[in-house]
Amino acid sequence: MASTVGAPIICNAAVSWEAGKPLVIEKVEVAPPKAMEVRDQTPLFPRIFGHEAAGIVESVGEGVTELKEGDHVLPVFTGECKECVHCKSEESNMCDLLRINTDRGVMLSDGRSRFTAKGTPINHFLGTSTFSEYTVVHVGSLAKLDPSAPLDKVCILSCGISTGLGATLNVAKPKKGSTVAIFGLGAVGLGAAEGARIAGASRIIGIDFNPNRFEGARKFGINEFLNPKDYDKPIQEVIAEKTNGGVDRSIECTGNVEAMISAFECVHDGWGVAVLVGVPSKDAKFITKPINLLNERTLKGTFFGNYKPRSDLPSVVDMYMRKELELEKFITHRVTFSEINKAFDLMVKGEGLRCIITMDH
Amino acid sequence: MASTVGAPIICNAAVSWEAGKPLVIEKVEVAPPKAMEVRDQTPLFPRIFGHEAAGIVESVGEGVTELKEGDHVLPVFTGECKECVHCKSEESNMCDLLRINTDRGVMLSDGRSRFTAKGTPINHFLGTSTFSEYTVVHVGSLAKLDPSAPLDKVCILSCGISTGLGATLNVAKPKKGSTVAIFGLGAVGLGAAEGARIAGASRIIGIDFNPNRFEGARKFGINEFLNPKDYDKPIQEVIAEKTNGGVDRSIECTGNVEAMISAFECVHDGWGVAVLVGVPSKDAKFITKPINLLNERTLKGTFFGNYKPRSDLPSVVDMYMRKELELEKFITHRVTFSEINKAFDLMVKGEGLRCIITMDH
Ligand SMILES: NC(=O)c1ccc[n+]([C@@H]2O[C@H](COP(=O)([O-])OP(=O)(O)OC[C@H]3O[C@@H](n4cnc5c(N)ncnc54)[C@H](O)[C@@H]3O)[C@@H](O)[C@H]2O)c1
Ligand SMILES: NC(=O)c1ccc[n+]([C@@H]2O[C@H](COP(=O)([O-])OP(=O)(O)OC[C@H]3O[C@@H](n4cnc5c(N)ncnc54)[C@H](O)[C@@H]3O)[C@@H](O)[C@H]2O)c1
Ligand SMILES: [Zn+2]
Ligand SMILES: [Zn+2]
Ligand SMILES: [Zn+2]
Ligand SMILES: [Zn+2]
Repeated sequence: MASTVGAPIICNAAVSWEAGKPLVIEKVEVAPPKAMEVRDQTPLFPRIFGHEAAGIVESVGEGVTELKEGDHVLPVFTGECKECVHCKSEESNMCDLLRINTDRGVMLSDGRSRFTAKGTPINHFLGTSTFSEYTVVHVGSLAKLDPSAPLDKVCILSCGISTGLGATLNVAKPKKGSTVAIFGLGAVGLGAAEGARIAGASRIIGIDFNPNRFEGARKFGINEFLNPKDYDKPIQEVIAEKTNGGVDRSIECTGNVEAMISAFECVHDGWGVAVLVGVPSKDAKFITKPINLLNERTLKGTFFGNYKPRSDLPSVVDMYMRKELELEKFITHRVTFSEINKAFDLMVKGEGLRCIITMDH
Repeated sequence: MASTVGAPIICNAAVSWEAGKPLVIEKVEVAPPKAMEVRDQTPLFPRIFGHEAAGIVESVGEGVTELKEGDHVLPVFTGECKECVHCKSEESNMCDLLRINTDRGVMLSDGRSRFTAKGTPINHFLGTSTFSEYTVVHVGSLAKLDPSAPLDKVCILSCGISTGLGATLNVAKPKKGSTVAIFGLGAVGLGAAEGARIAGASRIIGIDFNPNRFEGARKFGINEFLNPKDYDKPIQEVIAEKTNGGVDRSIECTGNVEAMISAFECVHDGWGVAVLVGVPSKDAKFITKPINLLNERTLKGTFFGNYKPRSDLPSVVDMYMRKELELEKFITHRVTFSEINKAFDLMVKGEGLRCIITMDH
């Protein structure tokens, strides 16, 4: 048993003291896990925005039977309690207990934080708070991994890439040989493209406002590119003309509601399926003519690619281990924990796809 | 072989000479069927709005191999050529060649009508024109029936009731024990309710502005009724409160875009599926917040319940023959052909569901 079990741990964490200010690496005290919680050690691997990471269990709180010290895990921003109506449904992954909650900064069992720095309790983020060498996470938000999976690669499966991949494989489900349009060529869109490649799509069309995304996207099997700014008619009309009436599947990964509408309206009547992934602004309105639906199109949205974190992520890791899923293509940069603000700069500038942050010690 | 084969037939047909005027029963001359066409005799059975009917083949034109004199058939307002990309798709029934065309008044092979009255060619309607003792229909718009099926009952399967039934069974696909909301309790909505009953839904909620529809709808397994006019908040909120977050499936059968939006927004997040059936006005706009989709709801539309007329309707007739599907409940009135304008009065007044028109001779 680790000598730290049951005791507070002092470790380094990148604390955001104020909005807009750079993160500051501070010594923080991490309390031991309480009932149904797990303390998760991240000696080698990344913390991005505090929620994409992989770790090793340091200790577990009361009632945790599924995980033990030394287990390899992916923390996920949304959880799976296995008890609620969503967890019991075959279709939903929107757990009532552990569903994403951007406002909650405390643990569920006692409404308190497990972090302290300079005498102040520090709030958790998305139930994961992975910018710390140690963090405490609800057991329901941790997927147990094959211990041979490299943590510094599979860490990127804990959010955006699985979201895109699952949007294609679990929701859009393109058939072999079909035509797929991907709106937005960030990591989520390229995760969706990777899904289309794996599913055997014969034609993958990438749509983005930012042509700098095009070259890098070729590695993901995208073989045609469209920039809506190059046309003076709606891009859905351009796509319909190029595809003899529309694509078989489209996946929207931008968060922009105009792209959502285009993604829907560019699918073929009779069988086309459009899947929305991007998180829209609060006031966004999706507007279309009902006849577009009556002509037998399907419109769906997905959250975390419809993966249930505990039940389904291990199989995604297995896809990588079997070399079906290519994760290396997504990793464009690596920095150490003390250089975390460099990783933010890359993200803000839109350079690269994923920057792995390795813990220093 | 019928003595009429190859020759024109003079028969009675209800001709609409002018918009808004009552139909006039006239002697019309019906030309023999040309290539890929079938002349269809309807001695005993109904003609409603010219497209819901059943008949017996009188003669066939060149190239017709699937039907012969004496076969029992349902004419359908949309066809199935079996050659186009839609007919070859497992999912679509929106045949490129024979898809509903409200503007075409002529046969496809030569762009001409097969009807003449008082020296004037008379236009066809929806490829069926069933207000006549004899009509000529493209072979792709005729479903061949089990000859033991009673034509004066199964005739009602050629449009609205199959549309509602298929919207539930083929598209919404409710699981046994689920909760289903039906918007609009006309024949189409009650067809959808019949589908929900057959699928084993345990709770069927009917929503209509017209409370006169409620009593008759009880026979279709609808056990709760809501009138949006009785509430001062959107009916989707009322439904969500009554169903612990929303229904599993909803089927919109009104043609009103507000009902379409309510039908979508009243389904449960995580797994709810809404199916649109009603034909909206041209200017209607479907508006919703994208977050309603991202929370894992599905929105679909259907045309003729996703049934392929030739391939699938025989199995619907079989469901009736096996007594799984109850058609008698839909038949509320019967008149003879000479009383056809009475049937119109009933429809305009919204009295009853289906009035069977029996040919006089
Ligand atoms: N549903 C989920 O579970 C989930 C999880 C993670 C991320 N997301 C969301 O997915 C979206 C994409 O994430 P990302 O990390 O790949 O973002 P990103 O910013 O790296 O990429 C988005 C791309 O979309 C392009 N774009 C924006 N508007 C466009 C338009 N109208 N037409 C064409 N291209 C357009 C941008 O140029 C950009 O390249 C975001 O909205 C994010 O919030 C959702
Ligand atoms: N998609 C297809 O293939 C297909 C085939 C046949 C019919 N249809 C369409 O299906 C729809 C229904 O046909 P029907 O013959 O049953 O019509 P109907 O007029 O007999 O019934 C419609 C019912 O909807 C109710 N209604 C209207 N607006 C409403 C609202 N906002 N909220 C609640 N109830 C409302 C009316 O009171 C009425 O009782 C029509 O739009 C028709 O054009 C579609
Ligand atoms: Zn749960
Ligand atoms: Zn993320
Ligand atoms: Zn066809
Ligand atoms: Zn009809």
